[in-house]
Amino acid sequence: MNILAFAASLRSGSYNRKLLMIAVEMARDAGATVDLAEFREFDMPLFDGDLHETIGMPEGGREMISRIEKADGIMIASPEYNYSIPGTLKNAIDWVSRARPMPLRGKSGLIMAASGSAIGGIRGLWQLRIPLEGLGVYLHPDMFALPSAPGAFDDEGKLKDEAMAKRLRDNVISYVTMGTRLAEPVKASLK
Amino acid sequence: MNILAFAASLRSGSYNRKLLMIAVEMARDAGATVDLAEFREFDMPLFDGDLHETIGMPEGGREMISRIEKADGIMIASPEYNYSIPGTLKNAIDWVSRARPMPLRGKSGLIMAASGSAIGGIRGLWQLRIPLEGLGVYLHPDMFALPSAPGAFDDEGKLKDEAMAKRLRDNVISYVTMGTRLAEPVKASLK
Amino acid sequence: MNILAFAASLRSGSYNRKLLMIAVEMARDAGATVDLAEFREFDMPLFDGDLHETIGMPEGGREMISRIEKADGIMIASPEYNYSIPGTLKNAIDWVSRARPMPLRGKSGLIMAASGSAIGGIRGLWQLRIPLEGLGVYLHPDMFALPSAPGAFDDEGKLKDEAMAKRLRDNVISYVTMGTRLAEPVKASLK
Amino acid sequence: MNILAFAASLRSGSYNRKLLMIAVEMARDAGATVDLAEFREFDMPLFDGDLHETIGMPEGGREMISRIEKADGIMIASPEYNYSIPGTLKNAIDWVSRARPMPLRGKSGLIMAASGSAIGGIRGLWQLRIPLEGLGVYLHPDMFALPSAPGAFDDEGKLKDEAMAKRLRDNVISYVTMGTRLAEPVKASLK
Repeated sequence: MNILAFAASLRSGSYNRKLLMIAVEMARDAGATVDLAEFREFDMPLFDGDLHETIGMPEGGREMISRIEKADGIMIASPEYNYSIPGTLKNAIDWVSRARPMPLRGKSGLIMAASGSAIGGIRGLWQLRIPLEGLGVYLHPDMFALPSAPGAFDDEGKLKDEAMAKRLRDNVISYVTMGTRLAEPVKASLK
Repeated sequence: MNILAFAASLRSGSYNRKLLMIAVEMARDAGATVDLAEFREFDMPLFDGDLHETIGMPEGGREMISRIEKADGIMIASPEYNYSIPGTLKNAIDWVSRARPMPLRGKSGLIMAASGSAIGGIRGLWQLRIPLEGLGVYLHPDMFALPSAPGAFDDEGKLKDEAMAKRLRDNVISYVTMGTRLAEPVKASLK
Repeated sequence: MNILAFAASLRSGSYNRKLLMIAVEMARDAGATVDLAEFREFDMPLFDGDLHETIGMPEGGREMISRIEKADGIMIASPEYNYSIPGTLKNAIDWVSRARPMPLRGKSGLIMAASGSAIGGIRGLWQLRIPLEGLGVYLHPDMFALPSAPGAFDDEGKLKDEAMAKRLRDNVISYVTMGTRLAEPVKASLK
Repeated sequence: MNILAFAASLRSGSYNRKLLMIAVEMARDAGATVDLAEFREFDMPLFDGDLHETIGMPEGGREMISRIEKADGIMIASPEYNYSIPGTLKNAIDWVSRARPMPLRGKSGLIMAASGSAIGGIRGLWQLRIPLEGLGVYLHPDMFALPSAPGAFDDEGKLKDEAMAKRLRDNVISYVTMGTRLAEPVKASLK
């Protein structure tokens, strides 16, 4: 299966990007082809209905839509901001949701989060499920939340904690199995 | 695929049971084998950790677990109580979640609601997603909410509104396709 | 102000009851009068619309309603079951919500949770907010979640961690201030 | 009490702005002083931790913070995008939440939505509660959702439906009563 993967953070030292890199390797080991994107490639203005009518879809939105369309599923590592989804990621979803056909519908998805706190961003992921599932994404039920992220990675970018790494790998393998099952040529009938 | 279906209502004239009956027929037309249960068959006391240690799983819980284990997926029609999941249904989930192996993990699911209001119980369904997905159920992203339920059925129990009936059928067919894809013999690898 | 306080657990060794006892002392120190109840006093059958029409409100429900009516606010310590509100507590809310006038409307509230996990039951509290706020309760925005509850109490039932105890006290004092401000004789105008 | 009011929409013909204008009049009738803002005054770039460290708070953020600080409460009319809070509004909250002291803490709030659909944006409001309450806002429990917004206003911008207008007025009056009670000079003790 083909997966579009990105971390929903613009920060250069983002722990979510580090986490995503590990998950991407695991997905490739599990047989998936992964298109690894930078969230900056999907740069968009703040959504504005008037702007949408005047200029149409902004370039970053067109890029994101095109990359989603080529994939069977998406893998997102997203920080939690204020107990919820980052405004930046939600803004991107709001733009993309205006495209017809809506590219997210019928795709599968896996979401994860890294956080400096003990809770690990899991509350933000529960809020992220809502727009994605509302838009018709087959989201993997298990999510992965990495707590205490600043000290969680070794010099090579691996997770220090073996049990944590195993849990992430199980999660990714389970998602790739699910996503492969739901991908083309059956996808058509799932809509 | 094998589906366990029930309406999470104890009321005899339940609109959710009426809605479920229609969905069950549609699932059978789509090729699924459906085990149609009454929620009363799963009667359980209010959950109490001490009671669980003393008497173990109550009979209604054992029945529900056994029926879930035989199925690949579950189809639930649930009323919305106070903007959320009914306490009765949550109580059943709380008991069942104590069984090991936990029978809901790896099952697929479709949820729907009938309501007398204009909103149709959709808020309750969003709250129902949380324990089910947290427990590892592959929930179909689209849900079905029937508003103004008292006047929605004809004398034969069909939905009067053709467009509404079509939307329900599309939903059920999409779920059966997804559920079949995720069922045995692949299920093992999904856990 | 008058507060009705209870722990939404039927288990004898409940950590939520231990946590509640501390919060009750703090509320009394802050000037509140507290009616400390056991959840068993509010024992009710599983909600069933037919049963409601036949027998009316069950005795445990009438007791809970009467105790809520005498209070200006409620303080609940609730476990998290399956990422959400316990079915038992939701069942009690479902019964009570059928009374007219609905006794929860216009009351203030503070909710807290104790849990054996590192997350401390905070996800369950976010789900508990929904029916309470939907029913018109002025819920204090800050909630208190006690993680790793089994080792959190000393022999006298106090919280071992001073910082944690301070945070709980600040929370309780802030709630009592808010609840007092919103209580009679202004309450009428708030409805 | 002093209220900062704005509609979280950049669109010129926004139904949420129309709805807000009515609520602002009602709040003034109830004795509140209202600072009516345009969301464009709070224009901010997409949140980026690196940008925050380099340039600090953007001008639109400083403006929003200053206006919140002068108020006792906030009144927001917000559209629902994809079953949740608009990315634009969440982005503004994400920026403002970085200020110290955090200006939203201890403020009261009332939220409302207008929508072209039959559901009226209420699902988005439930998601909006989460970051606001997480940040310490005393949110009024009742919210107002206006369905079928395109046909809901008369030529003078009033709500055509009397019952709907009465419900909004009750809601606003109840909020002003609550907000006044929780405002200075007690506010300090509420933190």
